[in-house]
Amino acid sequence: MANAFIPADTVPLGFQFNAVKAGIKASGNLDLAAAFAASGPASAAAMFTRNQVVAAPVAVGRKHLEITGGSVRTLIVNAGNANCATGEAGYNACKDVCFAAADTFQCEAPEVFPSSTGIIGVPLPAEKLISALPALHAGLGSTPEHVERFARAIMTTDTRPKVAYSTFEVDGKTVRLIGMCKGAGMIHPQMQLSSRPPAGGLSADAAPMDVASASSSLAPGGHATMLAYLFTDLEIKPLYLRNLLDGAVAPSFNSISIDGDTSTNDTVLMLASGASGAVYSPPHHPQVQAAVDQVCASLAHQIVDDGEGVTHVVTLQITGARTAAEAKQVAKAIAHSPLCKTAWSSADPNWGRILAAAGYSGVAFDPDKISVSIGGNTVFQSGAISPTFDKAATHTAMLEREFTIHLDLAQGEGCCTFLTCDLTAEYVRINADYST
Amino acid sequence: MANAFIPADTVPLGFQFNAVKAGIKASGNLDLAAAFAASGPASAAAMFTRNQVVAAPVAVGRKHLEITGGSVRTLIVNAGNANCATGEAGYNACKDVCFAAADTFQCEAPEVFPSSTGIIGVPLPAEKLISALPALHAGLGSTPEHVERFARAIMTTDTRPKVAYSTFEVDGKTVRLIGMCKGAGMIHPQMQLSSRPPAGGLSADAAPMDVASASSSLAPGGHATMLAYLFTDLEIKPLYLRNLLDGAVAPSFNSISIDGDTSTNDTVLMLASGASGAVYSPPHHPQVQAAVDQVCASLAHQIVDDGEGVTHVVTLQITGARTAAEAKQVAKAIAHSPLCKTAWSSADPNWGRILAAAGYSGVAFDPDKISVSIGGNTVFQSGAISPTFDKAATHTAMLEREFTIHLDLAQGEGCCTFLTCDLTAEYVRINADYST
Repeated sequence: MANAFIPADTVPLGFQFNAVKAGIKASGNLDLAAAFAASGPASAAAMFTRNQVVAAPVAVGRKHLEITGGSVRTLIVNAGNANCATGEAGYNACKDVCFAAADTFQCEAPEVFPSSTGIIGVPLPAEKLISALPALHAGLGSTPEHVERFARAIMTTDTRPKVAYSTFEVDGKTVRLIGMCKGAGMIHPQMQLSSRPPAGGLSADAAPMDVASASSSLAPGGHATMLAYLFTDLEIKPLYLRNLLDGAVAPSFNSISIDGDTSTNDTVLMLASGASGAVYSPPHHPQVQAAVDQVCASLAHQIVDDGEGVTHVVTLQITGARTAAEAKQVAKAIAHSPLCKTAWSSADPNWGRILAAAGYSGVAFDPDKISVSIGGNTVFQSGAISPTFDKAATHTAMLEREFTIHLDLAQGEGCCTFLTCDLTAEYVRINADYST
Repeated sequence: MANAFIPADTVPLGFQFNAVKAGIKASGNLDLAAAFAASGPASAAAMFTRNQVVAAPVAVGRKHLEITGGSVRTLIVNAGNANCATGEAGYNACKDVCFAAADTFQCEAPEVFPSSTGIIGVPLPAEKLISALPALHAGLGSTPEHVERFARAIMTTDTRPKVAYSTFEVDGKTVRLIGMCKGAGMIHPQMQLSSRPPAGGLSADAAPMDVASASSSLAPGGHATMLAYLFTDLEIKPLYLRNLLDGAVAPSFNSISIDGDTSTNDTVLMLASGASGAVYSPPHHPQVQAAVDQVCASLAHQIVDDGEGVTHVVTLQITGARTAAEAKQVAKAIAHSPLCKTAWSSADPNWGRILAAAGYSGVAFDPDKISVSIGGNTVFQSGAISPTFDKAATHTAMLEREFTIHLDLAQGEGCCTFLTCDLTAEYVRINADYST
């Protein structure tokens, strides 16, 4: 089948997708999605928000990966309700959905990975999700249309579905990688790997959904959170998968910010079916990391580009720092400065605000040595405005939807690239709507 | 003379004030202000921004206090031009104004304390300031009208002048304290004392304005920065004055944020003439600290209340933290969350966003034990929505211009009170204006 959005030969073998309308979204749109490892449990690795306040499905998903040692058969995602700030009932609703999905999709309950995104404080209508599971299962398929349905169902304030893919060779065999994600606000992911899985796999006496040790069941207001799912038909051990994912998330999802608000539900999950027959063996296959990097980078860019109220996507390139961590610290101060972000919205080459933000970032540097360029135009150097500063040209460069701000701290080799956006009245409008 | 704004008996003895139109502000309003210690050099203490990128007058003022050991005769403040990001010329302009003021006001150049606030990147027209100095000096006076002129002249995006005062007794003698300040955006002061003054006073061979060691000459865009000046006729040593000021600034100016952007020009200066004849001797006069605290608290509140685009002033009360520093860290995460701030603008009792911000603050706590109340209404406790949560009542409480959010972390005795505000489309409009 032809799909203008996703080419036919990009869907990894061994996975099926679907989405249905379970009646969670007020709009009546698709709101319940599944991905199913058709040929058996997939190798799995996940990264979750560093926010210590986490939603119930994050606690459950984390626990399930611990129990299985990194194996997922069925991914169930609902949008429209975050299943959050609902206390014990939140756990129970998540548990009920996982048990029912295990039944419908014929797997163990800990092999079900749950995700939720949407409004908070409203009890999750587990019964609506559960009654939709048979249709969700019955409609599974591997066409681009199925993938697109999945990508559309997980959207909240997103204006468009977000998909990226890569096809590459490993030892002469074709490997497919595809990723879908959502997120438009409350976006400043700070993802970390779930705890190292135990050596063994699914233990018979492990309580499938013991989340008593989980921290809590809270979540963002509104329709925020970043969710990203990657699927490949590569054969790969969970430990290697964790390394791949960790390596790809650092410069992508962990290097973007729309509003600096780190969500309680952020989740990145990567599944590998092995159905391509290609076996990953590091360090012999660097093209694999490159492909995962590329797909994550594309998805992360799509998130910022579709950010709430965004009219400009800004790449912050920080060089000359003592360390990469310090470079990122400077980038984040600039990315989270309301004064920088509002100036960008009007293409105002206001370097003073950029320098002020760098100055309060907590990173020590010599202001007399730094330089700043915007859209390729040097605006500041050696403690004062650049003698070659061309205000009109810089303003024109900033009228583009995307431009780069380069800040060189001139004191080391540490650097980073960080993706962010402007702050507009539309962002305020979207998030000031009385919605709780 | 009667003044509706400032009662007559509140102006400290020994000080004279004035302001004139030097032609710096595009509006043509008052833009050059002076305060003069008429009876001789005043005891002085100052706190400056922790931003490591600082404007020229901050570097010069800091240096002058070092040279004099904490003594100021003449304060010169201009608004409309921050004298920033202008390189070496910025230093020279500041020096020229100080030398000219020393000449006009008959004092030593290091006894002149300069401040600037306003637009950046535009060279300071020192000659305009210098030609206005004679009129500024000639019009000095001690009436409430003179104080009000001073307070109006230092305004930038402020919509109203900000003045607070206190009169109290020390050993049976009446002491007067008055403060004037400005600030409406780029407000997240993180003030620290200038370096400890040397034991000696003004040294004959000290280069009056050697700012070669100062870090730089940069400043915010637009018309931001907090400037605050306190005057008292108490007799007090500079060292005691530093302690008083430090004690008062921590819970006031250092516990407010409008937008999280810490300016490069923030300055708080306190001068004491001794003209009341009352001599401060700690710890026998606790009423002095109380008065300074009260005046600083009032000024800090006036700044937030007049913040750019502000429609709600929000007091964050954090209790039950392990330390006061951790309480403040949690407060700042909430105060700087765009999602919290936009929710407040529409009186949305969105506790999920508050919890999410606390969760990414970096302070460890147990989400299942915390509680949140908004405007006196308990909204969240024990990991879930409060059974007594009254959405309509909470929304109604948030329709007030001011309300308090109380977050109890239930793990210690550390607490703080932090003042902040909502984020509105008007803030974006003000700061997105193409102004560089």
